[in-house]
Amino acid sequence: MDTSHLLPRANVNTCAEPLIGALLKDPARYRVQMSTLESGTRLIDAGIAAPGGLEAGRIIGEICMGGLGTVALRANTPFKRWAWQVDVHASDPVTACLASQYAGWSLNHGKGAEGFNALGSGPGRSIGSREPLFDELAYRNPPAPTCLVLEVDRLPPPEIVSKITQQCQISPADLTLILTPTSSLAGGVQIVARVLEVALHKVHALEFPLEKIVDGAGTAPIPPPTANFIKAVGRTNDAILFGGRVQLYVDATDEDAEALANALPSAASRDFGRPFAKVFKDYEYDFYKVDPMLFSPAVCAVTAMKSGRTFEAGALREDLLDLSFGG
Amino acid sequence: MDTSHLLPRANVNTCAEPLIGALLKDPARYRVQMSTLESGTRLIDAGIAAPGGLEAGRIIGEICMGGLGTVALRANTPFKRWAWQVDVHASDPVTACLASQYAGWSLNHGKGAEGFNALGSGPGRSIGSREPLFDELAYRNPPAPTCLVLEVDRLPPPEIVSKITQQCQISPADLTLILTPTSSLAGGVQIVARVLEVALHKVHALEFPLEKIVDGAGTAPIPPPTANFIKAVGRTNDAILFGGRVQLYVDATDEDAEALANALPSAASRDFGRPFAKVFKDYEYDFYKVDPMLFSPAVCAVTAMKSGRTFEAGALREDLLDLSFGG
Amino acid sequence: MDTSHLLPRANVNTCAEPLIGALLKDPARYRVQMSTLESGTRLIDAGIAAPGGLEAGRIIGEICMGGLGTVALRANTPFKRWAWQVDVHASDPVTACLASQYAGWSLNHGKGAEGFNALGSGPGRSIGSREPLFDELAYRNPPAPTCLVLEVDRLPPPEIVSKITQQCQISPADLTLILTPTSSLAGGVQIVARVLEVALHKVHALEFPLEKIVDGAGTAPIPPPTANFIKAVGRTNDAILFGGRVQLYVDATDEDAEALANALPSAASRDFGRPFAKVFKDYEYDFYKVDPMLFSPAVCAVTAMKSGRTFEAGALREDLLDLSFGG
Repeated sequence: MDTSHLLPRANVNTCAEPLIGALLKDPARYRVQMSTLESGTRLIDAGIAAPGGLEAGRIIGEICMGGLGTVALRANTPFKRWAWQVDVHASDPVTACLASQYAGWSLNHGKGAEGFNALGSGPGRSIGSREPLFDELAYRNPPAPTCLVLEVDRLPPPEIVSKITQQCQISPADLTLILTPTSSLAGGVQIVARVLEVALHKVHALEFPLEKIVDGAGTAPIPPPTANFIKAVGRTNDAILFGGRVQLYVDATDEDAEALANALPSAASRDFGRPFAKVFKDYEYDFYKVDPMLFSPAVCAVTAMKSGRTFEAGALREDLLDLSFGG
Repeated sequence: MDTSHLLPRANVNTCAEPLIGALLKDPARYRVQMSTLESGTRLIDAGIAAPGGLEAGRIIGEICMGGLGTVALRANTPFKRWAWQVDVHASDPVTACLASQYAGWSLNHGKGAEGFNALGSGPGRSIGSREPLFDELAYRNPPAPTCLVLEVDRLPPPEIVSKITQQCQISPADLTLILTPTSSLAGGVQIVARVLEVALHKVHALEFPLEKIVDGAGTAPIPPPTANFIKAVGRTNDAILFGGRVQLYVDATDEDAEALANALPSAASRDFGRPFAKVFKDYEYDFYKVDPMLFSPAVCAVTAMKSGRTFEAGALREDLLDLSFGG
Repeated sequence: MDTSHLLPRANVNTCAEPLIGALLKDPARYRVQMSTLESGTRLIDAGIAAPGGLEAGRIIGEICMGGLGTVALRANTPFKRWAWQVDVHASDPVTACLASQYAGWSLNHGKGAEGFNALGSGPGRSIGSREPLFDELAYRNPPAPTCLVLEVDRLPPPEIVSKITQQCQISPADLTLILTPTSSLAGGVQIVARVLEVALHKVHALEFPLEKIVDGAGTAPIPPPTANFIKAVGRTNDAILFGGRVQLYVDATDEDAEALANALPSAASRDFGRPFAKVFKDYEYDFYKVDPMLFSPAVCAVTAMKSGRTFEAGALREDLLDLSFGG
């Protein structure tokens, strides 16, 4: 009997606070750079002018998960040339991944090359974002000091900062923004730490009821960073599409669990089969033309908790991973 | 020279306290449910009405080890279909595993289908359990706020709670009971986190002197949970019997280390060779008819610390693991 | 743009303090033995009379890295007979490994069999050591309570303790010395936790600019301890030389990254090819006759962060590891 939807759920802002505090207290330790806007909002640069690094990315991954997740760096993947991976699990995966980690808060200002376009991730979403997803999750956090993570390579304009604090109904001094470019080490780590989130987001897109997801865990190789933005986008996606693996535990019938397992892996998408940078190019870099069902781990196992049967689909594709990471 | 038996040993109740405190402070975070009996005793449901999960099982595993052990969830086992494992080690394995984690406190009330039968595990044993093992360990903790973990699927009757607090000489409000059904995710994780304990218990049963055990570590795959109790019992055992692996470091001669290595693996038992649910059924579900020497990891390596020679016996049995987890 | 050399760097003494505090607060928990000299200096025995163990070695490894590194014990190496490994990374590898972990502070007193010869490792180096390396690192910590780790099997004479406190300009009561014999479990773990440090030290010896090292991570199997000192020295080295693996991320051209990758692995040394104990014996146990370029991981991958290309050289040598660990 799944009663998780009746239980109170942890506050992702409270839980992430000690992790954000660690970055703010000793930025040099994580090789990030902190600056404070006139308004009092704090910016943490984790890979623009500051070097950041693997450990910065790891802790930012845990901040993205609202302090409810564990992101660990580990050696000895199944892949010959790419030895390091992140292992990810959470004490409450649906809340950690979808109510916090998913980069779902659209933050845009200006147009064209001058424009600033970002997708906010992290615990602040649960306070101020207007995504309909929160109604489905029936989850909200009250205004409080909070944090958003932006996968960008430059500072956000004041209008973006104002929009966030206004929607969160917090004073500017209560906001911390963490900036992680896609091409940085910290950026790469915090993106592949989304391997479980990406699976859960596709679970949702497939209209499988989220309340039937009891638990899960995921792993993905760490991509080599590159200054080439398109390549970096490609590799961080391919780490999950070709090298990612998740295990979900569901409170569902065997039929539903099996159907989910078969639909879930990246290989179930029409756009699967070549490095993401190539897919992206073929669509003339229009992200919205890419099949949204492509974004999923390579291998997905789904265990139906009543029967205890496990259904797995997909395959690790070292050949495509080598093309992407080594190309 | 091993002087460990002369050294003061850590108090498993003091060391486990912060972990128990984490569950009590924020049960929603771990998706457990806390209730308080009239007497003040706290019950933590980690898989009966509450969902619990992998992380709840992980931290409960560390509570079982009296705060002296590390239980980590990791991806990429040696097994194709079962990707996740627990890795376990402790700062003082004999104390952590035998004086705390071993489920040795027999707690029975009533008879037949109405009866409540449980084996208490965790730091409370070192205060109140009358197991003769504690004399051999020469280890006891004074009365203090404490915790027991019960692998059960319903609440314990008041008589059991009274028995524990009386034997521990503590007030009811100083007791926390954690309930983890075998068929739950948290239950499965905390059981396979016993991989090192199971080995040490067999070391003891083989009458190898415990003071010669200097250290050790273990790993086992996480079994898929199932609502079928017999299957769940089978899988949690098989995870260790067919997929578990330990490394022990002993202060002993090569002859003794080699003999221990050869006697230790599950394959050395007359009952080895088929999934545990089958063994159990063949003995008409009478647990006490099963060869106690069956309960041990699949592969056991023993290093004689003086000579530095390592003796290993047993083998991972993916074929039997597939029969059990996939059956 | 690498600006890491412009950023303030974490204080390895401040960062290591909670870890040293954990050992001092509850030595029984880590099975180490604490004694206090008349002067007030604290000695922590982690493997001479006290048993120490894997977890003691793990935390001492993190102390050596000045609190900036993570040392995790993990099962399932790529090696059949040696299942356990350490995975190591740091939030600031050059500082953690070279300004703290490297055993570079020469501490000698007396001569011959009576003499005490040790190489101090850990955060105290950044306060009091006169190694020219610190000028190159442009890194120093002010006098403060501190710690050194000595890989020795007996207590240091008072003259050594005085030398350290005087050079650090601290009172004797502000010094903690941790003693880890090579032949102990804790010693073995803290040595192989140097896998990344060993690589960075060779990077420096190869005159590759340290400021171009942005990040890195390493892994190595845990050697079976042995009371035979020469064998123990051999195995701890061979764990890295034959079983170690590092990944470095550099801010350099492809040519420089490739040259570094090719020069870095142990196999690039003239002395590579047989267990270290044999090499050592062939040089009549004169450590300074061994090619310093031998000390390096078996496999080294170097990613040029601008181009995103990864260059890897070397190979895991399970055959030689078996000869060493099993011999």
